[in-house]
Amino acid sequence: MNDHEVFELGNVVLQEGDTLREAKLAYKTFGSLNEDKSNAIVYPTWYSGRHWENEWLIGGGMALDPSEYFIIIPNMLGNGLSSSPSNTPPPYDRSRFSNITVYDNVGVQHRLVAEHFGIEKLALVTGWSMGAGQTYQWAVSHPEMVERILPFCGSARTSLHNIVFLEGVKAALTADDAWKGGWYKEQPTKGLRAMARVYAGWGFSQAFYWDEVYKEKLGFSSLEDFLVGFWEGFFLDDRDANNLLTMLWTWQNGDIGRTPGFDGDYERALASITAKAIVMPAEKDLYFPPEDEEYAVKYMSGTDAKLRVIPGVWGHFAGGGLNLEDIEFIDATLKELLAS
Amino acid sequence: MNDHEVFELGNVVLQEGDTLREAKLAYKTFGSLNEDKSNAIVYPTWYSGRHWENEWLIGGGMALDPSEYFIIIPNMLGNGLSSSPSNTPPPYDRSRFSNITVYDNVGVQHRLVAEHFGIEKLALVTGWSMGAGQTYQWAVSHPEMVERILPFCGSARTSLHNIVFLEGVKAALTADDAWKGGWYKEQPTKGLRAMARVYAGWGFSQAFYWDEVYKEKLGFSSLEDFLVGFWEGFFLDDRDANNLLTMLWTWQNGDIGRTPGFDGDYERALASITAKAIVMPAEKDLYFPPEDEEYAVKYMSGTDAKLRVIPGVWGHFAGGGLNLEDIEFIDATLKELLAS
Repeated sequence: MNDHEVFELGNVVLQEGDTLREAKLAYKTFGSLNEDKSNAIVYPTWYSGRHWENEWLIGGGMALDPSEYFIIIPNMLGNGLSSSPSNTPPPYDRSRFSNITVYDNVGVQHRLVAEHFGIEKLALVTGWSMGAGQTYQWAVSHPEMVERILPFCGSARTSLHNIVFLEGVKAALTADDAWKGGWYKEQPTKGLRAMARVYAGWGFSQAFYWDEVYKEKLGFSSLEDFLVGFWEGFFLDDRDANNLLTMLWTWQNGDIGRTPGFDGDYERALASITAKAIVMPAEKDLYFPPEDEEYAVKYMSGTDAKLRVIPGVWGHFAGGGLNLEDIEFIDATLKELLAS
Repeated sequence: MNDHEVFELGNVVLQEGDTLREAKLAYKTFGSLNEDKSNAIVYPTWYSGRHWENEWLIGGGMALDPSEYFIIIPNMLGNGLSSSPSNTPPPYDRSRFSNITVYDNVGVQHRLVAEHFGIEKLALVTGWSMGAGQTYQWAVSHPEMVERILPFCGSARTSLHNIVFLEGVKAALTADDAWKGGWYKEQPTKGLRAMARVYAGWGFSQAFYWDEVYKEKLGFSSLEDFLVGFWEGFFLDDRDANNLLTMLWTWQNGDIGRTPGFDGDYERALASITAKAIVMPAEKDLYFPPEDEEYAVKYMSGTDAKLRVIPGVWGHFAGGGLNLEDIEFIDATLKELLAS
């Protein structure tokens, strides 16, 4: 799990005004950069995800084939590997860690790509969920660099309903007195487990539960077994409470319209995208519903953006790499986009 | 708010085996019972609802017109007016209050209707949400009595996804240490507020938030104003934590298939319904989705059940009496059913 590199960013002035001192961007690469540096792909992580949790979409014969592409997975700020509440020294640690925007994340990723690797063009940016949000942000922040984007199960602006869903997640985590306003010595596990149970209803669709797909496809023996084994296990897997709250703030405040120069105008920011785009929501995603992406595509007048809905009952986790059919669907669409 | 009657039930043996001692059923009636006792309607309450929160559907010129019908609103066990953790004396109080099923609720309501009022036929049973669950249960427990049912935004069996949604609600409430396993001296308000925030994303649809309907139609000035004023206010409005957990258990365990004689067979219980039925889910209800009721209607072979979807963006709260269009839609459908 420590098979990654760290890019030292120095002091980074953030969009909200704070300075992230001696900031670090943890990343992992796959494959080799070719001579004309034309084969690079950026594939950012998602809410609480670490680079190794992105690897299911990379492999020989797949769209993201390391024998063909140079694939960079940058870890999102706050995820515990890049600069985060959990790994930043005092006085900027824990509850004092700064608010980070999606724009900030893409800013430091751009420095890695441009300064460190000397890359001027990206063949593709792609990502799931908050990774999709970063994908959109790349296309808006650096239109001259990004040739293609494929954001899946995510959005360019966090919808009001999505913000409310996250308020519930946050309230459950912070209802635990053991959280202590972020100054805990041990993880507030009751709050993390509560958060997991709140998340469980949102992550998969109503039909996923109706069909008991967690038994047949994921090998859990009962609903409770799934809630404990999958969901509570997920949030107890070395996911620090303050880190989760940092990334939650990033998510709630995601909006390409807040990119400098767009003055909060979401639709104008969408229209500025020139990268070839396939936008891919999942049919039954409860917090990134397809209609939101339909709206986005309508405003992406600077390119011939296509909407492609991932069918099926997996909801948001259609993009989570757990279901072979969904993996194949995403992979095939990535191949189509890369070939264009 | 105390303008109700109390029916003394004596000791009630519950479906799970406990005895509810000196049990009380609080209810309110509207209108008068006619001579042949043919004009009675039962209209049970919903999760955390009290009889006065049902009254929006009753009025002159409406389907539930007190000049025409004798309308009985029985308060659900656990709602703080009927026998509940908050009003039962030791040793059966608070965390020791018994688990109550939907079947138990209908059992005591039946005693009120039959023993106290001497009613043998009900022109209609109708209700929202858990009130819809009780409506279905009436039709299964007492097919000889119930002429018509109109369950809206609810189900005859709580779906697995709905159970998971409620697990999130429960986990948020009980994450607050002030809950003390139910032995609090003061309400665990942090947990109640957390529960409210979790509920907020479920109660209304994604589109309701996208369109900011809470501003235009409900008069809130911002999303946060709505979360505090509507949602937190809702759960802080004299809704006791143990009562909420009692009703939550009732909800999670709702299933007409568990009616004695059906041996857990949901579909067979549906087929036993003989009452004329219009089943009315809301288009964008996130925890009682229309497809679940489509499934139910398919199995209601003992009657000519109709599915009628309430259109619009209000989600579950289409049945909450907050939106004039939805009220009119429900009222018109009730008139149609009562005329048949």
